[in-house]
Amino acid sequence: MTKTIIGVMGPGHRATPQERQTAYALGQAIAQAGWVVLTGGRPVGVMDAASRGAKAGGGLTICVLPTEQPHTMSTFVDIPIVTGLGQARNVVNVLTSQVVVACGSGPGTTSEIALAIKLAKPIILLETPLLAQQFWQCLAPGSLHIASNVGTAVAQIRNILS
Amino acid sequence: MTKTIIGVMGPGHRATPQERQTAYALGQAIAQAGWVVLTGGRPVGVMDAASRGAKAGGGLTICVLPTEQPHTMSTFVDIPIVTGLGQARNVVNVLTSQVVVACGSGPGTTSEIALAIKLAKPIILLETPLLAQQFWQCLAPGSLHIASNVGTAVAQIRNILS
Amino acid sequence: MTKTIIGVMGPGHRATPQERQTAYALGQAIAQAGWVVLTGGRPVGVMDAASRGAKAGGGLTICVLPTEQPHTMSTFVDIPIVTGLGQARNVVNVLTSQVVVACGSGPGTTSEIALAIKLAKPIILLETPLLAQQFWQCLAPGSLHIASNVGTAVAQIRNILS
Amino acid sequence: MTKTIIGVMGPGHRATPQERQTAYALGQAIAQAGWVVLTGGRPVGVMDAASRGAKAGGGLTICVLPTEQPHTMSTFVDIPIVTGLGQARNVVNVLTSQVVVACGSGPGTTSEIALAIKLAKPIILLETPLLAQQFWQCLAPGSLHIASNVGTAVAQIRNILS
Repeated sequence: MTKTIIGVMGPGHRATPQERQTAYALGQAIAQAGWVVLTGGRPVGVMDAASRGAKAGGGLTICVLPTEQPHTMSTFVDIPIVTGLGQARNVVNVLTSQVVVACGSGPGTTSEIALAIKLAKPIILLETPLLAQQFWQCLAPGSLHIASNVGTAVAQIRNILS
Repeated sequence: MTKTIIGVMGPGHRATPQERQTAYALGQAIAQAGWVVLTGGRPVGVMDAASRGAKAGGGLTICVLPTEQPHTMSTFVDIPIVTGLGQARNVVNVLTSQVVVACGSGPGTTSEIALAIKLAKPIILLETPLLAQQFWQCLAPGSLHIASNVGTAVAQIRNILS
Repeated sequence: MTKTIIGVMGPGHRATPQERQTAYALGQAIAQAGWVVLTGGRPVGVMDAASRGAKAGGGLTICVLPTEQPHTMSTFVDIPIVTGLGQARNVVNVLTSQVVVACGSGPGTTSEIALAIKLAKPIILLETPLLAQQFWQCLAPGSLHIASNVGTAVAQIRNILS
Repeated sequence: MTKTIIGVMGPGHRATPQERQTAYALGQAIAQAGWVVLTGGRPVGVMDAASRGAKAGGGLTICVLPTEQPHTMSTFVDIPIVTGLGQARNVVNVLTSQVVVACGSGPGTTSEIALAIKLAKPIILLETPLLAQQFWQCLAPGSLHIASNVGTAVAQIRNILS
């Protein structure tokens, strides 16, 4: 009965058009696989695009908000978890996801990848620059998955869950 | 698109049979009204009964777990939010709920009612002993609703939401 | 080498003159006993008075701030712990204190007393109205200490620590 | 009256002898400059060494513990802040420090550097591998300081504070 929750983490305002496009396709594919999409919930960048894609795919969307109010939230979120915890909510993002997919790079996303390694949560890197890939593989050899496109990422999630 | 989330707070192991029975009926009525039930998620007492009632009513159930692992969770929860925050997760329970219903009395529930008052969240007291009712009304005059049964509580929720 | 930390919890803006006066005397007495005073750190009410008393008594003062910035802090605090956690920082107040003294009554203080009961932390009630005393004794029989003045409270702390 | 708090972050069990040696010297130098040393508080690696160095330098030491109990704590800590927040306490480490010094590399430290960038807190990288330096400079151009030894790090702290 418990739903499978896949976290999609990525930059907000600084997300590139390609990162947003990939996040949309990823959200849609996750929803079509029957899984729930979890994001940081703000109405920008990867979070917004992944939630929008998931709704286009007919799925359910959750977000974990840093603020005490749900005012500034993506309109594509079904279930807003309101924490008032600021950046400490990044830990909730990671722990609540069965698999964490990082789509793109930024300080918040970096903290979430690092926390996921620390908390032994499976991680897939998508749209991750080569230097960042090398950094993570050096920090946590053998414990990250690298995906070159959405199809591979979804296959890796399926593999991890089974 | 955003769902309406109603928090049901109450004792765990120390819940009385009547508190559990009321929590079950409340969860069922909330689900039948089309709202999502949020609890603290442990497989005991009011949390478990409210989630079980909500599933019987055809609804969706969320829980906010204090632990880093979802191991000890009610089997009637669809969406477990895993926080690892210990009792600090009580704040997330309150902030995520549009209305908080306290069903019964105990230290955890007391902290959640107090936090709800502090955070200006609507609260309904159900199955609350007279002394506790007096205490809360003295602490926060005019800002709590008291319900003598599930039907009244649901009418009060409907009123608050509209 | 580890210092003994005593938490003093109480209302902010709504504190009465008597609560502030008692908090000042309590902070001073805790400092003179060689213990560190911990408060919620805002520049008002019981928190401010207890820290001011502790500095007058030659002691060290810590506060645990709810905000991400230390801007609005009592000027009598030596060590500000900046959490950005909002009301979830109340749990940190309780867990960091070896003994929690509630001085006066209010929603925040009520949440801290309830969390202290939940977390099995020793609690002393000072300047607590009779109705509230009855409520707490009914909720957690035998697990709270009631003090009628600062001298008694300090004797009770000494007793608990030994 | 408010003390200046410098955070020293770094690996626990996986810390190398050189990282521990540098952390000791750094803690000692921070203490001798009159500042307070803040660490994650566990009795291993960089945290333990920095606290030990700070005590040798006659300073005050704080730690922010992830657990609900202070049991497993470095013996060189004066003031344990007990959070029960798990890895969410990393945010408290960063927000409470006026400057964050990362000494060595690991998942926890990586999350703290990333959170410090996100929260606009000054960061100094010490004992940081070249690949990690490149990664951080690419992620947050111009916002990190790199120190090749303890003397440089202390000079950089002094500069940032003035």
